[in-house]
Parts: sequence; structure tokens; C-alpha cells
Amino acid sequence: MADDSPETALPPIRLGMVGGGTGAFIGAVHRMAARLDGEFTLVAGALSASQERARASGLALGLNADRIYDDFEAMAAQEAARADGIEAVAIVTPNHMHAAPAQAFLRRGIHVICDKPLASTMGEARAIADAVAQSSAIFVLTHNYTGYPMVRAAREMVAAGALGSLRVVQVEYAQDWLAEAVENKQSDWRTDPSRSGSGAIGDIGTHAFNLVEFVTGLRVEALAAELCSFVPGRQVDDNAHVLLRLQDGARGQLWVSQVAVGNENGLRLRVHGATGGLEWDQETPDRLWFTPFGAPKQLLTRGSAAAGGAANRLSRVPAGHPEGYIEGFANIYAEAARAIRAHQSGTKAPGVHFSTINDGLRGMAFISACQCSSSQNTAWVTLEP
Amino acid sequence: MADDSPETALPPIRLGMVGGGTGAFIGAVHRMAARLDGEFTLVAGALSASQERARASGLALGLNADRIYDDFEAMAAQEAARADGIEAVAIVTPNHMHAAPAQAFLRRGIHVICDKPLASTMGEARAIADAVAQSSAIFVLTHNYTGYPMVRAAREMVAAGALGSLRVVQVEYAQDWLAEAVENKQSDWRTDPSRSGSGAIGDIGTHAFNLVEFVTGLRVEALAAELCSFVPGRQVDDNAHVLLRLQDGARGQLWVSQVAVGNENGLRLRVHGATGGLEWDQETPDRLWFTPFGAPKQLLTRGSAAAGGAANRLSRVPAGHPEGYIEGFANIYAEAARAIRAHQSGTKAPGVHFSTINDGLRGMAFISACQCSSSQNTAWVTLEP
Amino acid sequence: MADDSPETALPPIRLGMVGGGTGAFIGAVHRMAARLDGEFTLVAGALSASQERARASGLALGLNADRIYDDFEAMAAQEAARADGIEAVAIVTPNHMHAAPAQAFLRRGIHVICDKPLASTMGEARAIADAVAQSSAIFVLTHNYTGYPMVRAAREMVAAGALGSLRVVQVEYAQDWLAEAVENKQSDWRTDPSRSGSGAIGDIGTHAFNLVEFVTGLRVEALAAELCSFVPGRQVDDNAHVLLRLQDGARGQLWVSQVAVGNENGLRLRVHGATGGLEWDQETPDRLWFTPFGAPKQLLTRGSAAAGGAANRLSRVPAGHPEGYIEGFANIYAEAARAIRAHQSGTKAPGVHFSTINDGLRGMAFISACQCSSSQNTAWVTLEP
Amino acid sequence: MADDSPETALPPIRLGMVGGGTGAFIGAVHRMAARLDGEFTLVAGALSASQERARASGLALGLNADRIYDDFEAMAAQEAARADGIEAVAIVTPNHMHAAPAQAFLRRGIHVICDKPLASTMGEARAIADAVAQSSAIFVLTHNYTGYPMVRAAREMVAAGALGSLRVVQVEYAQDWLAEAVENKQSDWRTDPSRSGSGAIGDIGTHAFNLVEFVTGLRVEALAAELCSFVPGRQVDDNAHVLLRLQDGARGQLWVSQVAVGNENGLRLRVHGATGGLEWDQETPDRLWFTPFGAPKQLLTRGSAAAGGAANRLSRVPAGHPEGYIEGFANIYAEAARAIRAHQSGTKAPGVHFSTINDGLRGMAFISACQCSSSQNTAWVTLEP
Repeated sequence: MADDSPETALPPIRLGMVGGGTGAFIGAVHRMAARLDGEFTLVAGALSASQERARASGLALGLNADRIYDDFEAMAAQEAARADGIEAVAIVTPNHMHAAPAQAFLRRGIHVICDKPLASTMGEARAIADAVAQSSAIFVLTHNYTGYPMVRAAREMVAAGALGSLRVVQVEYAQDWLAEAVENKQSDWRTDPSRSGSGAIGDIGTHAFNLVEFVTGLRVEALAAELCSFVPGRQVDDNAHVLLRLQDGARGQLWVSQVAVGNENGLRLRVHGATGGLEWDQETPDRLWFTPFGAPKQLLTRGSAAAGGAANRLSRVPAGHPEGYIEGFANIYAEAARAIRAHQSGTKAPGVHFSTINDGLRGMAFISACQCSSSQNTAWVTLEP
Repeated sequence: MADDSPETALPPIRLGMVGGGTGAFIGAVHRMAARLDGEFTLVAGALSASQERARASGLALGLNADRIYDDFEAMAAQEAARADGIEAVAIVTPNHMHAAPAQAFLRRGIHVICDKPLASTMGEARAIADAVAQSSAIFVLTHNYTGYPMVRAAREMVAAGALGSLRVVQVEYAQDWLAEAVENKQSDWRTDPSRSGSGAIGDIGTHAFNLVEFVTGLRVEALAAELCSFVPGRQVDDNAHVLLRLQDGARGQLWVSQVAVGNENGLRLRVHGATGGLEWDQETPDRLWFTPFGAPKQLLTRGSAAAGGAANRLSRVPAGHPEGYIEGFANIYAEAARAIRAHQSGTKAPGVHFSTINDGLRGMAFISACQCSSSQNTAWVTLEP
Repeated sequence: MADDSPETALPPIRLGMVGGGTGAFIGAVHRMAARLDGEFTLVAGALSASQERARASGLALGLNADRIYDDFEAMAAQEAARADGIEAVAIVTPNHMHAAPAQAFLRRGIHVICDKPLASTMGEARAIADAVAQSSAIFVLTHNYTGYPMVRAAREMVAAGALGSLRVVQVEYAQDWLAEAVENKQSDWRTDPSRSGSGAIGDIGTHAFNLVEFVTGLRVEALAAELCSFVPGRQVDDNAHVLLRLQDGARGQLWVSQVAVGNENGLRLRVHGATGGLEWDQETPDRLWFTPFGAPKQLLTRGSAAAGGAANRLSRVPAGHPEGYIEGFANIYAEAARAIRAHQSGTKAPGVHFSTINDGLRGMAFISACQCSSSQNTAWVTLEP
Repeated sequence: MADDSPETALPPIRLGMVGGGTGAFIGAVHRMAARLDGEFTLVAGALSASQERARASGLALGLNADRIYDDFEAMAAQEAARADGIEAVAIVTPNHMHAAPAQAFLRRGIHVICDKPLASTMGEARAIADAVAQSSAIFVLTHNYTGYPMVRAAREMVAAGALGSLRVVQVEYAQDWLAEAVENKQSDWRTDPSRSGSGAIGDIGTHAFNLVEFVTGLRVEALAAELCSFVPGRQVDDNAHVLLRLQDGARGQLWVSQVAVGNENGLRLRVHGATGGLEWDQETPDRLWFTPFGAPKQLLTRGSAAAGGAANRLSRVPAGHPEGYIEGFANIYAEAARAIRAHQSGTKAPGVHFSTINDGLRGMAFISACQCSSSQNTAWVTLEP
């Protein structure tokens, strides 16, 4: 489908991974995303803080024993020294363990693909930003929902003026997997404020916030939030209601919840302008609803002519053959691959987009502003531009 | 279907109407609602402030010439004096013209079925409340969405504990018919603050607010709002974002808009408790989605066994034969008829529910609190219980 | 909404009813449909073959005692003799009891509104047709699904060429209420071949067949059918698979079932032409999906500009306020009222449409052809034009 | 998610490919499916009948020049002779070019993963079957829709009796991409009877037929079909209406169309038994609707507890993160990998399922029976068991 198919004659990019030992959900997702287009090959890993688990995981993934590391520092040092060392690293550790490895690899010129949110504290985030500023390497933040083709279509339509001037943005990200006081592999660090830095607003709120700014092209200028923690004993927020003031007078509402029983992964965005409206739901990501004012609602689908160029360059199979979460995530890796290839050849990669360190800092500012507003009885808090 | 079918041997209740001349949307709806079950017969009207239009409308509706009135005062006086005078009156005038006729008929012991919101100002609202307090007559406010059977089912399920303790309530009422600066029959008084007293928050926000309190059984204790007016030159709000604090620690978000392009009449409610969640959408009113935590989402349908008693007593046709807006509205009239019959016979009407003067005052308090909060930069404003 | 609103100055049409005693589903539906627009008033009835039930039902409906009849013959004779006698009669008895009353009233020039299918045998059907031919009165068959505005829109679009030449028609009517061997009020005569003449193909198959011919404007020329009876002991078909050959080379498939667990009242129609496709589902009747070939699917809604004139003349409330089964049924009554008014005034009622005796005969031919084909191992059977 | 995750310590299976040169849709899909779990590595190919294109495609895919072959015979011979030769081959050529390569590789003990339908003629199909019978190698037919987890769930539920005895099966596969006389890369051989052997019934009908037998566990015993070709000049069927008689008295209807405007890839299956019903739509493949008779419809989702073991062993990401076409296709490759690993180690692969040569022969029998029935005016034709 895509004009700039990632299937190329170039050998795959050598990838390392920090975190993501067997059993970790997000590590497996990154690996599938990296594999799908054949643009990356995983050759090294510091997959766990537990030496034993790091080793077992590395073997299970087919890594050579000498490239299974006990810690990321050793990996950064040794891989940087190899002729066939990794060209890029995926960091898929808990939030509070992003900064140190990111700095270690950036310092050595190794490209970093980092899970979100950027960090657990603003201080860590700034440290990463400094490292990015001083490195020639590329830094990619995996706001994977921006990899969905129809999210790209939405952004393209807004930019082209299909909605007129924007007025109202409604975004929500509702889940229910933390509706009870569970302690499991996925949730344990997420519900520990010392490791996550926040609850729902960091884990999924940053996705929602990023999606708003990505699609609308408008910055959120201020917000007013109420964070709640409904489950007894929970130390982080599990529900947040946020009002948004965006550039150009647009207004919005953001809701994130991990206790909204009946929701699996309900990330939904609606954008309403003076002359049109858009609706998108992550659980049926190939579909984008567009209503020109006064005319029938239209169903735009990935792979169809109406999806437009921005969507179709990231599309793999024809319309009606659904693409999903892994494909969307893989698009971030595909974009990263294009950027890395261009970087290596000293050229540009036109049309490539991925979330950057700036998006990461915006996300941290969002978290911080939500916490600040909520602690001040929902006072409006300004976000620096 | 219903056990207490309104088809009875009793002659229909004699009804008058104030407002609702030919061409007025809501007057025609009230008449269809009144007719559907054969419980009311329209026999008198002061249908328009224009004498000519009042007369033409009355004739078109088959009223006898001597019961077509030029003004509601004459109608109240003369009908009260007739042996076959009206027993009830429907008031379907613009908001600022509710109070005077309501007082006139209540004073004479004639039951009042009044459109919402209660009034255009809190002063008028209190005057109506005083009249209700001093009258033996019944006062019904047509919050018609509470007439939908599956809204009744939702309320019954919440009350029965099917959701556990409530945590999060999301309600929205989104339309787009005022996305442009239109001036038409429906919108003219609605966009004139001297007649409506408010914009979207009064016209549709009171419905959303009422629905929240009706279904959850919880009162909103405080709210924080941002009202906007997006269409150039508009003098009333056409979009409102509101945060809600409800009893028992529940939290909510309310959004109303009349400029959300892509929405026709999108009143949607979601209620999430500790052990279950409910979702309902006015545009497919026969369907209620229920998710018990950890189990599959279920589709409860009007007319089915799973809908429960509260829904099925208001159901007219079997499951799968859709009932709609008029049927839901007619259920308010059917409830009113049951209450009036009971009142006339000195008995009780068990299980009957309709919105009362208190709901009307709550709605006015909601409008007022939204306006107050918005004027104070979204400060939290308390609603009196 | 509608330009030719049925709210007129004329007194309502005096209506009688045969069948439809208390507890009978379809009788109550006819009464609600007749009442909704105020165009009919029920003044007489022979509501049950049981004298006692006939009387009790008549009183419950508020009929005068002298117009509650024990049998339809007496009713026809006496009403025809009254100056204020009924102008029209609704026949809502089981299939095998349509012919005799229809003849009795037609003979006396009283308009007949008859439930479907036309009769239980072709002989009875022809007798009714003869009576219609010899009467000046109007005969209306309540194929109520043709009363849905968006079904009218579909027909109008096909006629206007929006789909190009038609190729494929898929229709289905799936229910599950007879999935078990139930004996209840609604099902007892329906599952008795001596009274119904057929099972699912008569009860709901005739609706599906009628809908196909109504919307496409094409006649079914031949069919091949397999009828089944899945529930042990059942004497009539409860499932039918039918292949259709239509005029102009179009082909179709029809499925009706009363044992398809998971379906409530699933009447669905899809029409595909060379340049466009339409989809409609009775359970969300206000929505019609239209796909122009190569362009996005569009959602056409009742009450919107895109619905077109044929739909909007039968529309009562604005878009987004759902209309349902009763409104659709009421549209048949509204059309009948327009035709009767025109008949009485010696004028024409332009644009009025309802199913006629010819549609009734087509339905009987459909039933007969299905039975014939199925008994001949699914041989193709021709339908007379 | 899955207990038997394919991420293992074993080196990937060496894969070759016949057909699938750059630009061919299905070849790219097979490669993504093979890559996703890291279980295969593409090392050789005879990617095109055009020598030039074969070479360019091989280089673009990163194959070593000495393993880019001009024809499959050379590839089979040389790869079989290498110590590091391919262990399996994917055959993704047009239908009439399946038999020869399949035989060549099977003869040398190389496992074959073959696209569907099995062949363009029954003679070719039998030749493949003979080769399978004489080979120790595994033969996998990529009926990829059986790889969707919720299709597995449906099969498991039917087998467990959740629907009771089956009565009615409705299947359809509707597309519209051939609604006009297009000549493009994908369609050219598909619309040439000498290469495809059939039209819609082979290309998509075999999928629908296979899905019915896979999910229900019942064989189709006889069918009656009408094939049509609507587009002027088209030499193969582009629409088929088929009646099905299945084992145990179940009945079904099958519709396939490539001219049904408004459909992208509409493969939909409904199964109705005495006590329950199931509905599944390929365009939202993570969702399976289940209705126990008399109870609310339930939405079963991939990744949830209710999906059951058969689904969850093929699930990669949590519920609500949609999986799509590529993941479903990759499940066939994952199953093949498990079977090949077991074959290589002389063990069994419990629970593994994929379509086999027998399914391929069933599909060919289906095509043949449809053509035979249609040529005999829709006579019933028996399928050999």
C-alpha cells in the first residue's frame, strides 16, 4: 500500500532493549512493533534488573549470551565499543528508570526509542532533555496512538481546514482494569508513586493530552483538574476530570479513568470546528467519522481513497482488513527507522513524524499542571508554551 | 405490555394548552404525547400571543371557537368556571412565559404540565414554587428523557445496587443546530437572554443535570463551569464544560453544546460504580449497556425480561420494535394521567414518577450555579440541597 | 416538520375495530397508531369473538355500550345505518378471519384498514380482492414498515437512480421469540396452520418481501425456497431461506426466521446497485446508510436535509429525536387518513402511498410460491406479475 | 498474554517464498505474518516469474543474491541441498500456480504454507493432495480468518454446547472492489478464469465456506447455488447466492459478492442454535456477540476472561487494544511454527490448529458444487464428506 514501504534492501537496524523481560506487556509490544516491517533486529538487551531474569529473557529472545547484559550501563559501554554494536535502543522500563539509560545511550550517540511518559519527575525529564540537546542521536517517544493512520488523517484534515476554526475538543481515555485493588505485574509500579510519579494522568492521560495537541495542532494553554483516587488504599490518581483552554479560544474536556467499569481501552477523541466535526475511537482505529456541517456524517476508512495521504503512507493492508494496536505501534518504529536511515545517510526523511523530547516535556508539564490544579481546588494552571 | 396500561374505561382528561401554536415544535410534541394513550383530550387553548395565530391554530386543532382564547388569563378564568372546563393545562411557551400562566392555573386548582426549564429567572421559579405550595393541583415538569423505559431501568439498577457505590458519572448533551448564527422559529427566543435566561445550559443542560440526579439518586453538591459562546454575536452560552461533585464522593463531568458539529440530539449518560457500569444514548433509547465488573458487557433492551419492572411498566410494544422520543414524552403524560386520576379519586398512584417543582428548582439552581462559576473563572459553586 | 401535517381542522375520522380485544398486541398498536395524529377516533368495535371479552374490552376503551358489538356482521350493518356511523374499520383478527369482515365492510362502502398478511388462503385473498374491486371504499394493508420515513427515503433514492441499475438485494427478518415451543397469546394462532395458513413466511416473510418490492420498485419474478420447522412439534415453518430473481436481472436473498436466537425484530434490507448501496435496519429506523461507489459511507438521518422529501413529509420530530415503530405504523394511518379525506372530498391526495390489495395478493403469491418451491426441493417457482 | 508464547530461544525457521514480488498484496501480508512473532526468517525466494522483478524484489527484501531464484524448481533443488536450506516455503502465487511448486517442495520434505484456494482446478488440487500424502512435510493452507482469536472462541463455544444443537448458519463475504470493470494488479488474474478457475466463490467464497465448517464443526452436505456475473464483460462470477444443508439438519445461507457497493471486506458469520446465538464480523474481529436464549446479548472480547482458552492462546495484547488482519494471519504462521517445531523434535503440538490439505479439497469441492448447481438452475448438489 504505502509508497515508502519500509521493506528495503538495507539491513535491519541493530536494536537493543532496556527492560522488557519475559512477561512484561510493553516490552513484547515494542518487539513486535520492531519486527513487523523487518526494519529492526534485536541483538542486545538489559532486560531486567534481576540478573537471572535478564539472562533467561535474553536467551528466550534468541540473543547471543555475550550481548545479554545485567545492567544498561554495561550495555551502553560495550555496545558502543563494538563495530556491530546497536544503533538504537528501546527503553521500556518503569517511568522512574527512563532517565538514566536514556542519558547513557544518548551520550554515546545511540538513538533512543523511549516509552512514555517521559519520566517520573520533571527533574528526570529535564535531564533527558539536556542529554538529547547534547547528542546527535534521535530521541523518539512512543506515543503510539499517533501511529494510527486515521489519527494521521484527522490531523491532516484539521490542518487542511476541513473543520474550520476549532471550537470544542472532547477527549477521554477510560479503562477499568484498576477498578479493584489489584496487585499484578502491570499495575504494581504504576500504582507506586515513587516509581510512576503519577497514576492515570501519567499512564494514559499523557496519551490523551498528546493526542489532542497532535490532532488539533493547538497547544493547551491552561487546565483545571480534579484528580481522584477511588480505590481504597490507592496512592495515585485513578480518575481525572480536566478542563482545557487551548489556543485560539478553543475549549476542551479531558477525562481519564482506570476505574470506569465497562471500558477496556477507550481512548476517544472528538474535535468540533465551525464547519465540521471528527470522531475517533481507538477500539475501532481504522474508522474516522467526519461530519461537514449540514451534511451527512461520513465514515472514512483506512485504506480508502478518502483517508488521504497522511493515513495511507502508514497503511499496510487494504480497506476492510483491520489494522490494530500493533500496527499502529509499528508505525512509530517505522517512522523511527526512516528517521534513523536518513540520519545515517545525512539526508532528510520528508513527511516522517514521531513524538519528540518536546512532546515528552509537554506531557510532564501536563501531569504537573493537573497535580498542581487539583491540589488548589481545581484552579486554572497555565502550561508554558 | 404494561400491567397498568393507560387504556381505561375512564373518559379522557380534559386538557388545555398555553402556547404551542401551529409551527411550534414543542407544542406539537406535547399534543402527540397527550394523544398517544388516549388519556387526554385537548379542548381549549391560548395557543399564541398573536390573536390571529391563536385563532387559526385552535381551529386547525379542532377546538371549539368558544374555547380558543386570546390570553391565558381569560382561559384560566373561563375554563375554571365551566362544568366541563379543563382539568389540566400544558404550558409550552418560552421560558419567561411559564410563571404567569402556571400561577393562574394553579390558583384555580387546574393541574399544570409545564415545559422545562422551569423559568427564565430564579425569581419566576420561586413564584411558581409558591403557587404550587398553595395549590392542591399537581405540577409536572416535562423532563421527558426520564420517560424513556431504559432510563427507568438504569435508575432501578443503580438503586438496587447493581453498580455498587457510584464513582464517576459522565453526561453530555451535544447538538449542532446552533453551530451557525441561525435565526429561526425554534432558536429565536432560545438565543435571546431576556426570554430564555440562558442558552445551552438551560435548554439542554437542565435535561442532562436532571438525568444525572434521576438515574444516580445522588445530588450534585457543587459544580465548576466554563460557559462559552462560540458563534459570533450570540448573547447566550452555546457550549458548557462542567465538573460535578456529587454526594458520597462521586465525581462527574457534564458537557452540553449546541455547536458540536456532527451531533443531532446526543444526550448520553454513563455511570460507573465499584462493581458495574451503565451506558445509555438517547438516540438509541431502547438500549442500555450494562457491564458487571470482570464480565462481558450486556445489552439490555426495552421489552425484554432483563429490562426489569420499572422499564416494562412504561413499555408499549415488544422488544425490537423501537420506541422513540414521542413514546418517552408520552410516558410523562401517562404518569401525569395516573397521578391526576389518583388525585381525583383520592387514592395513590403507586410507582408513578415525574419531575416536580423541586426538580424544576434544582434545574434553576444548576443554571445559576453554572453562570456564577463561569463568571468567577470556574470556581466551585455549591448547590443547596 | 411535515408540510402536510395531519393536524387539521377537520373532525377525526370515525373508526371501528374488528378484533384487538384487551391483551392483543396488534390491536393496541393499531389504536395507538390511529390516535397519534388525532385523525381517527375509535367509536365502535367487535373486539373479540368472546362476547364477554368483547364487552369488557369495549368498555375499557371508552366505547359507548351501544357500539360494542358481539360480531362484525352486526357492526357492519348497524354502523352503516347510523348517520354518525364509522367511516373506516381496522381489521386486526388472525389471518383466517380477515376475509369475512373485509367483505362485510367493503360491501357497505366502509374503508378497510387490514392487518397483514392479507388472508390465510389464496381463496380468501381473492374474495377480498373481488370485494375491493366492487367497492368504492379504500383498502389499506398495514405493511407498516413502509411507513418508516427512511424506508421512503430509500425508495425515493432508488427511483432517482442514486444506486444505478440494481444488482443485489439482501433482506432478512430474524426473530427468536419462537425458538422454543411456546404457547402464548401472540403465538397460538400464528403457529396453527388452519388459522395462519403459514408460519414465518406469512407472519414476517411477507413484510420482507413487500419491503423489497417497495424499495427497489422491482418485482420478484421467481423464487426458490427451503422452509424449515426446527422446533419439535411445530406445524408451520419457523425458518425460510429463499433465493430471488427480480426484474432487470437483479438477484436477491431473503431469510426469515423466528428461531434465530439473538434477534428481536431484525428486519434488515440492503440494496446494491452499479453505483451505490443502501443499508437499513428496522431496529434503528431513523438511519439509512448510503455508499456512493468509491466514496465514504454516509449516514442519512430522518429529519435531516439529506433525508429527502419522501421521508420528511412523514417525519414528526427533528433529527436525533428517534421515531419508532408506533410512529411508522401511524404513518400508514396518516396516509390512510389523507386518502380517505381526499376520497370524501372528491379530490386527490398527491404523494400518498400505502400498501393496497395488490400488495396483499403479491404477499399471498409469495407465501404460496415459497411453499410450492420448498415442497419441490427448492425448485424455481415463477410469481405472476 | 499467551501461555505458549512463540517467543522462544530457538532460532527462527528458515523460510522461502514463491511469488510475492514487490507490489503483490498477499506476499507482503505473508511476510509480515511470518515476521511478527520472530519465528520465521525469510532467506530465499523465487518471487516472480519475471527474472528482473524476482531479482529486484529479492534484493529489496534483503535476500542474499545467491538465494534469489528465477524459478521455484531451481530453488527447491538448491535449497534442499544446502545445510542451511529453507525449512518451509510460502506459496503465494495465483491459484493455477500452486500445484507445481507445492509438489516440488513437498517432494523434498520442505514444509509448505500455501495461499488459498488450493488450486484453480480439481485436478491440480488432487495432485497436491497426492504429494502431501507422500511427503512427511506439513502442508498448511492459509485460511487466515480461522486465525482470529474470537473465531477460535466461537468454535470452542459451539463445541462446548453453548448454543445447543445448531439450526441456522448465515455467512456472507461482501466486497465492492470489483463493482466496476477494473484491471489492476490484484484483480487481473483473479478475473481470468484460466488462472483463477473461479471468481468470487473461489477468492472469498472458500473463506466463507471454510469459516462455516470450522466454527460449527458441521460439514455442508449439499448446496444449491446461483452464480452471477454483473459487470459487463466479466468472465467469472462476481456474486453468488448459495443455500446450504449441513449435518444434523442444520440449514444455512451463504452470500459472497465483489460488487456489493458499500462493503469493504465484510466477512460476517452468524450461528443460531436451540439455546444460543453467535455473531462475528471480520471488520471488528476482536468482538464476538453471544446471546443465550432469553438473556441479554453479551459482548465477548479478545483478551478478556470470557473469551476462553482457545482465543486467549492466540492473543497478543490486552483487551481493548485491537488486533487485526495481520495478527490473525500471523496466528496461522504461529500455529505452523508450533507444528514445524514439534515435527522437528518428534513431539506433538497440543491444541495447534490450521487448515490442511483436506480443508483445501473441501474448498475445491465447494467451488465445483457451486458451479455445477448454478449450471443446473440451482439444483441441489451433494458434497462428498
